[in-house]
Amino acid sequence: VTRYVWVNGAIVESSAAAIMASDRGFTLGDGVFETLTVSGGCPVRLADHLRRLRASAAALSIPVPYPDGGLEQAVLDTARANDLAGAVVRVTLTRGPALGRGLVPADGAAPTLVVQAHPWRKPATGQPHGIRVALASVRRNETSPASRIKAIGGYLDALVARAEAGSAGYDDAILLNTTSHVACATTSNLCAVLRGAVLTPALECGVLDGVTRRAVREIADALGIQWTETWLTAADVLSADEVFLTNSVRTVVPVVSVGGSQIAGGEVGPITLALRREYLRVL
Amino acid sequence: VTRYVWVNGAIVESSAAAIMASDRGFTLGDGVFETLTVSGGCPVRLADHLRRLRASAAALSIPVPYPDGGLEQAVLDTARANDLAGAVVRVTLTRGPALGRGLVPADGAAPTLVVQAHPWRKPATGQPHGIRVALASVRRNETSPASRIKAIGGYLDALVARAEAGSAGYDDAILLNTTSHVACATTSNLCAVLRGAVLTPALECGVLDGVTRRAVREIADALGIQWTETWLTAADVLSADEVFLTNSVRTVVPVVSVGGSQIAGGEVGPITLALRREYLRVL
Repeated sequence: VTRYVWVNGAIVESSAAAIMASDRGFTLGDGVFETLTVSGGCPVRLADHLRRLRASAAALSIPVPYPDGGLEQAVLDTARANDLAGAVVRVTLTRGPALGRGLVPADGAAPTLVVQAHPWRKPATGQPHGIRVALASVRRNETSPASRIKAIGGYLDALVARAEAGSAGYDDAILLNTTSHVACATTSNLCAVLRGAVLTPALECGVLDGVTRRAVREIADALGIQWTETWLTAADVLSADEVFLTNSVRTVVPVVSVGGSQIAGGEVGPITLALRREYLRVL
Repeated sequence: VTRYVWVNGAIVESSAAAIMASDRGFTLGDGVFETLTVSGGCPVRLADHLRRLRASAAALSIPVPYPDGGLEQAVLDTARANDLAGAVVRVTLTRGPALGRGLVPADGAAPTLVVQAHPWRKPATGQPHGIRVALASVRRNETSPASRIKAIGGYLDALVARAEAGSAGYDDAILLNTTSHVACATTSNLCAVLRGAVLTPALECGVLDGVTRRAVREIADALGIQWTETWLTAADVLSADEVFLTNSVRTVVPVVSVGGSQIAGGEVGPITLALRREYLRVL
């Protein structure tokens, strides 16, 4: 745990970083967040993260109490207070302390904003370790707005799927949605490579619009690699030439097996490696 | 907002009732809760609520740091500290402050337990006001364990459905599940009455095992009213003779219209009234 946390405008010692017990983020998951990295002292794709934070907050009608410049300063101040040139920074925004009980928020609540930083290092550019993922029993609810925004109250299924996967010896889990189409991993977008093209679930599948996925798509476009957002079944993924995950903290992560079945003989494929190398190069 | 809150074993002023900003309940919705009433100084169906709290906590592998007697004392102490003979008491249990980042909790975290009380009066026994409910666009995810436990991270869909319903002028909303069967209202179980029998969605429909629903079922049994847990469609509910909701705080609430369509001419039916009267009598 790092020493300093930013809470509602002030840097405080972590041991003193407190929020009200009545905060609706704490009682109802009524809040949103972003997790981004700081690399060499600079926030990575900050504008994308702040745009998504505002979209998530708007979906729940939570006001964002700072302009982008103020949020950027909070991110930088928190990383610097902890002497971190490389950091994972989490920005959490909730509706704030409840003024009454029940689901319906009272008017006039003041939102709570917390910024936390942890040490982070850009992954090494060498041959990456491929991970083994489970196929979760929990389905992702693509009918829920929570599936497309980054909300505190939207992670319980991921928590359960991740715990189940860990107990069974897997590194992570992939979730299908309620129509049996692939959605994503617990905290990452999923991409499959088939005959040289990247296929990734469309947002309508119940997928967060990943900042790293967007960045990787730009790289694919630049490299002339075809990119399609579509509907994928588990069978499509199992028969893919390559599978990889994208996530701001973990960057581009090769998947070498799904539910115990090896992907393409358990080797990390060339398109995954090329996209990862380019992503890390510009990071 | 009441004056005193119970936090991790101590009664403190509400203004000083704080939890750590790193609490996983606040960051990830990684916690569970119960909302129960205190009537005439006594907790209502406390054993049922504590059993469900333990079941919810077990589903997320969160240890419960007190025996039932300690939890009961916390409920009573919180109500009494606020001079409330009639109270809504909420018990919130989270995994506690995170020892690192990410979905996977580190071993050795100390859970957070908070007990809050608000004034509550037993509803009057006269003719109740029937409410008008919307049919939510969000579907309840019956494949998620969150649909059957009372978790902080399980209320986002309900928050969204309730906000949408409120904007459209409704009092509450009913959610279907992903197979288009009726699940429940945003914070209540739903019952329909057809030809003198009560029909209510089975737990497999993605329904919380409601304490008040159980209590009302006992009353139905005693009155010789047939009670069936089953699968219901929206059409079944729209063509029912009566519809009512059950909830610890609101007790038994008649529904007089669903999605703008009147139920049985908008009148509150005799079985709803009988069950409500008996429930309030023993409360």
